[in-house]
Amino acid sequence: MTGAVTIVEVGPRDGLQAHPHPIETAARIKLVSLLRKAGVRRLEVGAFVSPARVPRMADTGAVMEAVGSREEPGDMVLIANERGLDQALEHGARAIAVFTAASDAFAERNIGSTVAASLDRFAPIVSRARSAGVFVRGYISTITDCPYAGPVEPDAVKNVARALDAMGCAEIALGETLGRATPNRIAAVVDAVATAIPLDRIAAHFHDTYGMGLANVREAVRLGVRTVDAAAGGLGGCPFAPGAAGNVATEDVVYMLHGLGFETGIDLDGIRAATRFCRDELGVVPTSRVFAAMAKA
Amino acid sequence: MTGAVTIVEVGPRDGLQAHPHPIETAARIKLVSLLRKAGVRRLEVGAFVSPARVPRMADTGAVMEAVGSREEPGDMVLIANERGLDQALEHGARAIAVFTAASDAFAERNIGSTVAASLDRFAPIVSRARSAGVFVRGYISTITDCPYAGPVEPDAVKNVARALDAMGCAEIALGETLGRATPNRIAAVVDAVATAIPLDRIAAHFHDTYGMGLANVREAVRLGVRTVDAAAGGLGGCPFAPGAAGNVATEDVVYMLHGLGFETGIDLDGIRAATRFCRDELGVVPTSRVFAAMAKA
Repeated sequence: MTGAVTIVEVGPRDGLQAHPHPIETAARIKLVSLLRKAGVRRLEVGAFVSPARVPRMADTGAVMEAVGSREEPGDMVLIANERGLDQALEHGARAIAVFTAASDAFAERNIGSTVAASLDRFAPIVSRARSAGVFVRGYISTITDCPYAGPVEPDAVKNVARALDAMGCAEIALGETLGRATPNRIAAVVDAVATAIPLDRIAAHFHDTYGMGLANVREAVRLGVRTVDAAAGGLGGCPFAPGAAGNVATEDVVYMLHGLGFETGIDLDGIRAATRFCRDELGVVPTSRVFAAMAKA
Repeated sequence: MTGAVTIVEVGPRDGLQAHPHPIETAARIKLVSLLRKAGVRRLEVGAFVSPARVPRMADTGAVMEAVGSREEPGDMVLIANERGLDQALEHGARAIAVFTAASDAFAERNIGSTVAASLDRFAPIVSRARSAGVFVRGYISTITDCPYAGPVEPDAVKNVARALDAMGCAEIALGETLGRATPNRIAAVVDAVATAIPLDRIAAHFHDTYGMGLANVREAVRLGVRTVDAAAGGLGGCPFAPGAAGNVATEDVVYMLHGLGFETGIDLDGIRAATRFCRDELGVVPTSRVFAAMAKA
């Protein structure tokens, strides 16, 4: 296997959104700049969502301005509704992400509506974003397992992917939210979605709760996925949320992909610097094995 | 993929041999009994090696007697020389393991001779063990990377495997000592060795230093390997040895294999009990992600 894989660094959003302590805006800005310095070209800078529900993302506009997101087509922000899109456009966002799930039970608890209702709600938002020339990613969470409803059928994911595609999402991110799935189940989902969406528009978004993260990334890449989400240090999860764990660590993904012969454009030492910053300044405990191994070596 | 994979639990030997503190014989016995209770049928009980160099394994004979190794064909002990074989036979060992490397530089530092000299030394030992009706495993360490000489060629591993096979080893364990290799490199070694040794006599022995352990197990199994070494909790490595990390965790391997549709005969909760024992009684910090996830869930 050779070629290039694009890493989407989600640490500044998915990694920090549930952080147990307040985060200085300056620290969020610094993290983004360290990630850029490491060669990251696509990153999730923050989110325009309810500051009451997600206080850590409240100053996303200020972060975007400080890190020059207006000029960076790879800077993405998550939005939840029309108001979020307004804010994103106001701050010059070139890429946004909307999010739904493959399980009604999860969607109802996480975003307050069924999957179908969320799709109806997002359609005009995506359309408006597209008209403004904004790149839109559609996240599908719980692609294999729902914490409330159990296993999810690959066809359910495919149907949501098709709907997101039809409304104009340029990219579909497959989120294995619980970090429980083994590679065979990832393969089943990727295969199902790939019948509806070209592989070069599918992103793998895996968490590492049960240690399957890298094996699953490997599986997705083996099947032809070329966009992989990751968070420096394995940032994410919440010490207060039972069972939650972070995204697969950028260091680990990059280490593996380089070993497999892929180019990512990312410098491992640069990511380590970002992780060290999160550890030293934000009190995050890195879960990356590569970070630990290189610290000892 | 379906069928059965045999787990060889190496925690009581590879996991404990470098433990920073003395270990009560009773604790070693208890660990073995917890592992048996979890359904483990093959395990490395200990080693007959220099007690000066590896003091933690000094009472292996007592452990073997206490856990009934005379009656257990799956109980294996590592030996370094004729004297080790004498001790193993004295205690009724039904299975032993000898060890060499694929790199001269590593063999010279680890066992004090070149690979070729170690093979010459082991040949009569293996022959004598076989005559006594003892199963013999041959370990090959540094199958992809040597800490002193860099990358190792797959053909070098194949040649050592062939020599171990020729002297009568019933099984060849491929040890990725540094835990650095990505799955493509594991595939290259397995493919090379499989040209000389049937897959059902090859065991995968991987460490998790750079987080590649599970992806590498998955790769080996995908290629047809059906014997996998693991240590409860990810036991192993040494807090005083820079860069060292433990074996891939039994919980994580079993979780993945069951998810992939393989039978192992091993009960995850039973392994967790063994890991809890190591944590609570031996002060080991488990590195298993499945252990952590299930503790939180």
